[in-house]
Amino acid sequence: MFIAYGMKLSGNCYKVQLALEQLQLPYRWVEIDSLHGATRTPEYLARNANGKVPLLEIEPGKYLPESNAILCYLAADSALLPKDRYEHAQVLQWLFFEQYSHEPYIAVARMIDAFLREDDVRRADLPRLRAGGNQALLVMEQHLATRTYFVGERYSVADIALYAYTHCAADGGFDLAAYPAVSAWLARIAAEPRHVVIGAA
Amino acid sequence: MFIAYGMKLSGNCYKVQLALEQLQLPYRWVEIDSLHGATRTPEYLARNANGKVPLLEIEPGKYLPESNAILCYLAADSALLPKDRYEHAQVLQWLFFEQYSHEPYIAVARMIDAFLREDDVRRADLPRLRAGGNQALLVMEQHLATRTYFVGERYSVADIALYAYTHCAADGGFDLAAYPAVSAWLARIAAEPRHVVIGAA
Repeated sequence: MFIAYGMKLSGNCYKVQLALEQLQLPYRWVEIDSLHGATRTPEYLARNANGKVPLLEIEPGKYLPESNAILCYLAADSALLPKDRYEHAQVLQWLFFEQYSHEPYIAVARMIDAFLREDDVRRADLPRLRAGGNQALLVMEQHLATRTYFVGERYSVADIALYAYTHCAADGGFDLAAYPAVSAWLARIAAEPRHVVIGAA
Repeated sequence: MFIAYGMKLSGNCYKVQLALEQLQLPYRWVEIDSLHGATRTPEYLARNANGKVPLLEIEPGKYLPESNAILCYLAADSALLPKDRYEHAQVLQWLFFEQYSHEPYIAVARMIDAFLREDDVRRADLPRLRAGGNQALLVMEQHLATRTYFVGERYSVADIALYAYTHCAADGGFDLAAYPAVSAWLARIAAEPRHVVIGAA
């Protein structure tokens, strides 16, 4: 029985929930309110010194942080992670793209726009974040124009990772209608077996 | 024969050079001046739509971007990438930590401090970048206080990835003397067989 520590409305945490559900793995979810300090307590920092969610407890006291590392761990030896050396590396390529070129713009814009007050000073970052996020969406649009999934024409953890914050990008002020191939891919991912929506109980 | 496209003074590119050398793989290096637009040409964008270095050409026309995905590709089936499922995932954990919690602070501070003019407006970001970078160094210091290497007490691509920008963090204004376990680990990594220094021909 895995224990997943996370905040269900966080896209990074949702990735883990979606993989656990689609792989039909047994787990218990422990909700952690990272917006209000629950990842900064001594107890939590003892589990993950970097103070972030999600965090997977594999067995008592054996922890794994970083959403995309958790995806790879859970999907090892499953159809969600290709065995072929090049396809496997391409999945990693998109997971690193997601954490470096996508999440810091699209997820952060969503967090500011959807969760912070109207007068929060961080709103001044939104134009810069939207420019970076649209650049990431453009790279995805070009890639998906000729493909069904991100790697090897099969559903993989690369799709799960990129779906997490892309499907709710409108919360950060992004116009997904400008990206038809991305929009069609989002609909395909939402139709995968055992899909769950973000924030689902 | 691999072709590695990169800028040798970039830590992300240096990771690839170090892995190619230490794994004794045949390669040719193509220097790309990413500071002066060489990653934004139509020719380069056709190889990597995200317009970044490094980029590995595995065989003619078969490309792989993202430094840490390249490390995993090159190290597959070698001692630099553990086979054990949990250790493998821990290597990925530190690779994602490096790209999300370390590089955007320490590498960017170095780029601004060492490569931009004294009057560049981006220097205003340095205090925020140094705070984030010191937080990453603190997480590394705590981890290395009881360990020889990042994962499984063996040298791995996690060490290569984190060495790349940590060893030159002083270029970004970081004081490594405040992190004795990190400093001792840096000396161990520099003493590994077939080590090369950043920028080496």
